[in-house]
Amino acid sequence: NATDAIRTVTLIPGDGIGPEISNSVQKIFEAANVPLKWESVDVTPVKSPDGKFRIPLRAIESVTKHRIGLKGPLATPVGKGHQSLNLALRKQFNLFANVRPCKSIEGYKTPYTNVDIVTIRENTEGEYSGIEHTIVPGVVQSIKLITEHASLRVCEYAFLYAKQNKREKVTVVHKANIMRLSDGLFLKSAREVAEKYPEVKFEEMYLDTVCLKMVQDPTQFDCLVMPNLYGDILSDLCAGLIGGLGLTPSGNIGENGAAIFEAVHGTAPDIAGQDKANPTALLLSAVMMLRHLHMPDKADRIEKACFDTIREGKTLTGDLGGKSKCSEYTAEICKRIKDSQ
Amino acid sequence: NATDAIRTVTLIPGDGIGPEISNSVQKIFEAANVPLKWESVDVTPVKSPDGKFRIPLRAIESVTKHRIGLKGPLATPVGKGHQSLNLALRKQFNLFANVRPCKSIEGYKTPYTNVDIVTIRENTEGEYSGIEHTIVPGVVQSIKLITEHASLRVCEYAFLYAKQNKREKVTVVHKANIMRLSDGLFLKSAREVAEKYPEVKFEEMYLDTVCLKMVQDPTQFDCLVMPNLYGDILSDLCAGLIGGLGLTPSGNIGENGAAIFEAVHGTAPDIAGQDKANPTALLLSAVMMLRHLHMPDKADRIEKACFDTIREGKTLTGDLGGKSKCSEYTAEICKRIKDSQ
Ligand SMILES: CC(C)[C@H](C(=O)O)[C@@H](O)C(=O)O
Ligand SMILES: CC(C)[C@H](C(=O)O)[C@@H](O)C(=O)O
Repeated sequence: NATDAIRTVTLIPGDGIGPEISNSVQKIFEAANVPLKWESVDVTPVKSPDGKFRIPLRAIESVTKHRIGLKGPLATPVGKGHQSLNLALRKQFNLFANVRPCKSIEGYKTPYTNVDIVTIRENTEGEYSGIEHTIVPGVVQSIKLITEHASLRVCEYAFLYAKQNKREKVTVVHKANIMRLSDGLFLKSAREVAEKYPEVKFEEMYLDTVCLKMVQDPTQFDCLVMPNLYGDILSDLCAGLIGGLGLTPSGNIGENGAAIFEAVHGTAPDIAGQDKANPTALLLSAVMMLRHLHMPDKADRIEKACFDTIREGKTLTGDLGGKSKCSEYTAEICKRIKDSQ
Repeated sequence: NATDAIRTVTLIPGDGIGPEISNSVQKIFEAANVPLKWESVDVTPVKSPDGKFRIPLRAIESVTKHRIGLKGPLATPVGKGHQSLNLALRKQFNLFANVRPCKSIEGYKTPYTNVDIVTIRENTEGEYSGIEHTIVPGVVQSIKLITEHASLRVCEYAFLYAKQNKREKVTVVHKANIMRLSDGLFLKSAREVAEKYPEVKFEEMYLDTVCLKMVQDPTQFDCLVMPNLYGDILSDLCAGLIGGLGLTPSGNIGENGAAIFEAVHGTAPDIAGQDKANPTALLLSAVMMLRHLHMPDKADRIEKACFDTIREGKTLTGDLGGKSKCSEYTAEICKRIKDSQ
């Protein structure tokens, strides 16, 4: 029955502008009659008995229960004795693939047009293993950890994504000429998976070459799959091509449909609470979430209203080159959604 | 006396198009009456008694003696039991800083203009340590090695370079939010050195942020200093902004003035021997070498003839959008040099 279909989504509004943009997304979802309930949780770290800071239990319980989250930006105080919360969430829920589509928004001026790239990043290990040692003072080693399990898993996800979304090509990005064993293992895993998807073109390219070609002609790329750090770099690079982190959605995908979608831009403390923030990245992340939850019609309608608003260019926030408030931009999107129903 | 001043430079023509473009540089140097002698050596790897492939002794002796080299592209056969020769040379001579200026060439069409960036890359350790292990099948670790010694040394070089070349700013590029110990040590070293150069502006930025900002507005960057792999990535990215590896010079700088300058593009086996290659990157590397050897007038004259030829656009090689042969492009540059004398 209909009530059964109403899922609850854990909402982590986040810090700085997080609450405003989360509010904006909630309003837009309401305007579109999206059949979802929100459970808002705070993830401000709490101090455990061992002195370390941890994600509050209520937040963990909520995500564990609902298995779907939408997350605003979180502040990561440097050197305050707790790990980046963004990373902690990815690890806690074993969200192994970070997916960031970067598609040029028609009518929004950037040096590049027709960009349509999806970066798929291994999200649990690599240079982000967290294993580091000072061998003697002044000599440090950090360990990049690559496992076949995690490499196969993310490559499998990438090819499946490409197939299901009717994308043409997957490029595996690596430096196996330098890190022969670790990137070599990632590359070998990608090759193995590629064999199983003859309908998807497969390409191998060095990370440095990808960067060079990317700025020369990004339209030659489609889906990219790669180890953790390379994904960190390339997803930001691609975001830059289409207008920055304020416009790019992101999803962290785990096993059995668990996922957290997030805006990856900062908390913008300087404009927080002033109704100036741009909610687009969080909104588009929420749109990704709708597709993940098999609500493509709702997703399309919201996305179209958002892109139409940007293309028209009359009601944009400051960072998008306009003079409108976050609430006005939000209202404009809501209006377009209602008009389209 | 005058004879004493004539230095010998080790020339490593390299593979594929290497010999042609080396020949072109030699002709241009002759036209400019550069007071240097060439000692051409082959670095095709030879098999040692232990079965490993090594750089031939004669090449090592030549560079050791003359302490200055100019190098064309080298082929690195994958998985043939010998390490990248490019890397072997950098390690053998302890060439600790890799310097790559990327400056827009006036009149040469690219999406970006007024780019003027110098990447200064730590060249001996980091992700290029070569230390890797398979822990158990399917589980690999690669070690990123960062030492205070090498970090201070390259940062010192970067600030000195900025000061001597009247550059405004040095940006240290890092991921110390993730690799707190290793990139943390690099960052700390950069900060320490920055203290000693109050006349040079100092900035710290995450690698991913640099990538994003780079494609949005590269003119905000000046000199960049960073660990090995980040330099590999960013130097290619910057090269892409100004037209690719065919136009960007590179220098590997060691202790006490030792240095090897090199074209970092590939060997282009498909066009080798056909008089179609573009010698610009090797020529501009040779120009860097002249500056390093305190011959700024010769450097300026050759560089101007090269840039004028590109700007005029009538005698360009295929990759630069023209129809001329390598020898014609070379002759045009020689003619301009002679006319200017
Ligand atoms: C905030 C930071 C820890 C994070 C990362 O390095 O992954 C960010 O850059 C990202 O891409 O989500
Ligand atoms: C050829 C390769 C080993 C090298 C590197 O990775 O450093 C190249 O990309 C470079 O930048 O000189």
